[in-house]
Amino acid sequence: MSPQAVTLIAHECWDALRSEEFGRLAYSLDGEVHIVPINYAVDGTRLVFRTAAGSKMKAVMEGGQVAFEIDSFEGEWAQSIVVRGHLSEMTGSEAQFADQLPLRPWLDTHKPHVCAITAYTITGRRYRMHRPWHTMTPQV
Amino acid sequence: MSPQAVTLIAHECWDALRSEEFGRLAYSLDGEVHIVPINYAVDGTRLVFRTAAGSKMKAVMEGGQVAFEIDSFEGEWAQSIVVRGHLSEMTGSEAQFADQLPLRPWLDTHKPHVCAITAYTITGRRYRMHRPWHTMTPQV
Repeated sequence: MSPQAVTLIAHECWDALRSEEFGRLAYSLDGEVHIVPINYAVDGTRLVFRTAAGSKMKAVMEGGQVAFEIDSFEGEWAQSIVVRGHLSEMTGSEAQFADQLPLRPWLDTHKPHVCAITAYTITGRRYRMHRPWHTMTPQV
Repeated sequence: MSPQAVTLIAHECWDALRSEEFGRLAYSLDGEVHIVPINYAVDGTRLVFRTAAGSKMKAVMEGGQVAFEIDSFEGEWAQSIVVRGHLSEMTGSEAQFADQLPLRPWLDTHKPHVCAITAYTITGRRYRMHRPWHTMTPQV
């Protein structure tokens, strides 16, 4: 079986993002790269999430560019979507609007800040996994 | 049900890392944060992966600090492990040694470079997910 990779077009990437609610946020703070899992919801071309005061909020205050990834597996196909964008805090009525989104943090902790990643690039790739060991039969 | 979070100790994090072979690498290049899925193997306190010439290799050449994450779900428990470390290329006999590792890229493409993330911090967290909608019964 030959390897096979498919590049997703933008609306396929957004469909995938809308179908999930968990991904990983990568951001830079004080010159170091961090990565953290988050729950999110899609609002247009933004990804919205809640957070407590912490390093993610500091990254917001640094006006940071961030990257965000989701991935999934189905049979021999893997799929990964990466969003790159700008991180900002939503305040006032905009933050209240977040209550209308299907944004359901899995951790029941206090997260008073609502943040948005405004996407400026989105890329997606689906690829057939080359894992021959999954179908190898041990030799007797 | 009250939320519950458990901080993992280092050897539990390494056990988790050894039990997986897929994670996400976050790195900085030209002042921008990137995130990409990779297959990896554990070698001592290093994570080893193969790559083609590309932006990950450029990040190596910038002598970059990187972050790496794996996560998993089991029932109502989620677990996330984050490694932060230094990215470097393995060359010569060290690179050849990588053939001895259980390093099995899922994508059957040419990846001549062997890279290592030498960990300087590792953090892990296991938490009980607060997802009441999973057990909610629709009201008639």
